[in-house]
Amino acid sequence: MRAVEQIPETGAPVRAISWEDGKLRLLDQRLLPGQTRYLEYDDADQVADAISSMVVRGAPAIGIAAAYGAVLAAARRSRETPDVWRDAFARDLARLAAARPTASNLAWALARIKRRADALGPSSDGDSPETALLEEARAIHEEDIAMNRRMGALGAALIEQPCAVLTHCNAGALATGGYGTALGVVRSAHAAGHIDEVLVDETRPWLQGARLTAWELVRDGIPVRLIADGAAAHAMRLGKVAWVVVGADRVAANGDVANKIGTFSLAVNARHHGLGFMVVAPSSTVDMATPDGESIRIEERGPEELVGVAGEKTAPDGIDVWNPVFDVTPAALVDALVTERGVVRRPDRASMEAMMRNAETTTA
Amino acid sequence: MRAVEQIPETGAPVRAISWEDGKLRLLDQRLLPGQTRYLEYDDADQVADAISSMVVRGAPAIGIAAAYGAVLAAARRSRETPDVWRDAFARDLARLAAARPTASNLAWALARIKRRADALGPSSDGDSPETALLEEARAIHEEDIAMNRRMGALGAALIEQPCAVLTHCNAGALATGGYGTALGVVRSAHAAGHIDEVLVDETRPWLQGARLTAWELVRDGIPVRLIADGAAAHAMRLGKVAWVVVGADRVAANGDVANKIGTFSLAVNARHHGLGFMVVAPSSTVDMATPDGESIRIEERGPEELVGVAGEKTAPDGIDVWNPVFDVTPAALVDALVTERGVVRRPDRASMEAMMRNAETTTA
Repeated sequence: MRAVEQIPETGAPVRAISWEDGKLRLLDQRLLPGQTRYLEYDDADQVADAISSMVVRGAPAIGIAAAYGAVLAAARRSRETPDVWRDAFARDLARLAAARPTASNLAWALARIKRRADALGPSSDGDSPETALLEEARAIHEEDIAMNRRMGALGAALIEQPCAVLTHCNAGALATGGYGTALGVVRSAHAAGHIDEVLVDETRPWLQGARLTAWELVRDGIPVRLIADGAAAHAMRLGKVAWVVVGADRVAANGDVANKIGTFSLAVNARHHGLGFMVVAPSSTVDMATPDGESIRIEERGPEELVGVAGEKTAPDGIDVWNPVFDVTPAALVDALVTERGVVRRPDRASMEAMMRNAETTTA
Repeated sequence: MRAVEQIPETGAPVRAISWEDGKLRLLDQRLLPGQTRYLEYDDADQVADAISSMVVRGAPAIGIAAAYGAVLAAARRSRETPDVWRDAFARDLARLAAARPTASNLAWALARIKRRADALGPSSDGDSPETALLEEARAIHEEDIAMNRRMGALGAALIEQPCAVLTHCNAGALATGGYGTALGVVRSAHAAGHIDEVLVDETRPWLQGARLTAWELVRDGIPVRLIADGAAAHAMRLGKVAWVVVGADRVAANGDVANKIGTFSLAVNARHHGLGFMVVAPSSTVDMATPDGESIRIEERGPEELVGVAGEKTAPDGIDVWNPVFDVTPAALVDALVTERGVVRRPDRASMEAMMRNAETTTA
């Protein structure tokens, strides 16, 4: 792994994930907004670590990074043990899949890479699988950007007049192949002249809102104000918000949504105030094998994210911490689920199944 | 002002405010939990600064500190200009009253000191007002502790069986004369064997929950787990909470409650989940001259609390920030308001008036 300091071009879309000369290059999101450092990977295990340690985060971005990680694995295994590379490759895939538990895009992208690998000739024919799998990883990446653009248009159409919206965590270019899911909708709605302001929750404990979403929106020149997570309900009560727009890490078959901790509270408050609650996620985030939110495994991370910041102790010695990093919003609180396959209002099992059967884009 | 390093005795109740040899001694709450440093004040202006800059915070504690600050002012002014000390003293009181806008105890305590000063003989009789006003300030302080004990018992009686409770910000010994309002209820309920666990919101941006409440409860040996503010609703959904117990900075005549930003969201979520929402505050926090929550001035603090921690930049340059530090919970979401005068369930103007007329303690 090699670190590359590079200042992203102002005005140009940020590229948090790229494939450069046979290596995966990731923008180290742990250092933003203070520092823009890219890390280059040529090893799948290190990519798994990069996912676990949140160099790269955001459900679609994790899937894309893992797909490129699988390319690195295939290249190495087929070089080291050309005859039996698939066994070691399968273990590499398992390690990548275990890097984080909640996002379904990770398993989805790796399953797609595996299908492509399985479709290659027998391992004994000597051809490196790298070219074919890189083609698949690039397709996953490019399709993600295209889906974001599509979702941006579909979601923006729901924001019918100029208003302020509120978002949580980062569901932007940094969390995806580019453009963003929730921030894709914000970008498209802003382009249509329908965004007066974006309120951004700082999103404790990792501060994705403060560090990443605010950074993206300031770069784009979209009006943005940062707030504490606890201020969101107060903003709603004062009439400062018309829509809450968020991404998702996993959507269950009944429309329940796992997303960054704090999302569920926003959904409850949005309903209390009669505001719209919109979830934006590609269909690769929908896991029809997960029947409902109760079945989604919610990752819990270590206490260190809550007991100190930048070397300063913010909690007493001996304190116990509970740090679940996702929560589940029941489908009944979701006013609109936007995927590249269409918009589902107040999702349930039947409308989710209809949407997933739909290869074409429709607005239900 | 002089700094005194002193390690609070383990097991002994922490004394955040005390009068020592003619000076006001405050525990510097900005440095907790890493450091326990006391600051000694002999000047009312410096006490006003200590309140503004949150050396001391929490509505009842602010009132007590301001009362002692007024004693310092009276002592100095009567020494400097014995004949006309009341004019300069009135200006000192105004400066103390303006130190923070939302807590009503500040104005309440200063009004009480002023009434006592007004009842003293004419300024020309040469006696220093210090002794009489110190007696009044001490009474305010001691009565606050007694009220906390009383509220502790009243509130704990509502927690009928062992359960987990959730609290926000710090409404403990540090926020009051001692014992605490919300934490007074927690302490009393714990003594009765009815607290399985306290979940504490870290309470951004100032982290009063992480830094102060967690510190108090760990010192007391009460089981406590620290959570991100955004995790509270998730905890409720998983059945981990039976009561939300919070303090208040101002209660309006109709029972609307101003408290630390994030409180309102907890109230909405508690109602959504059918949990109890209890507000604990002495009647000095009730301002019958404020008709409702809309009339309460909500303090907004600077952006610096949200854009960096401990010298580390956590938000991009050029970001706008909205940092209201209190919010208003409508009376309709308050299941029980506990004051030393009794318990009001689902308060409204009539029940608030009845409670405030009640000098005796009753349980309505």
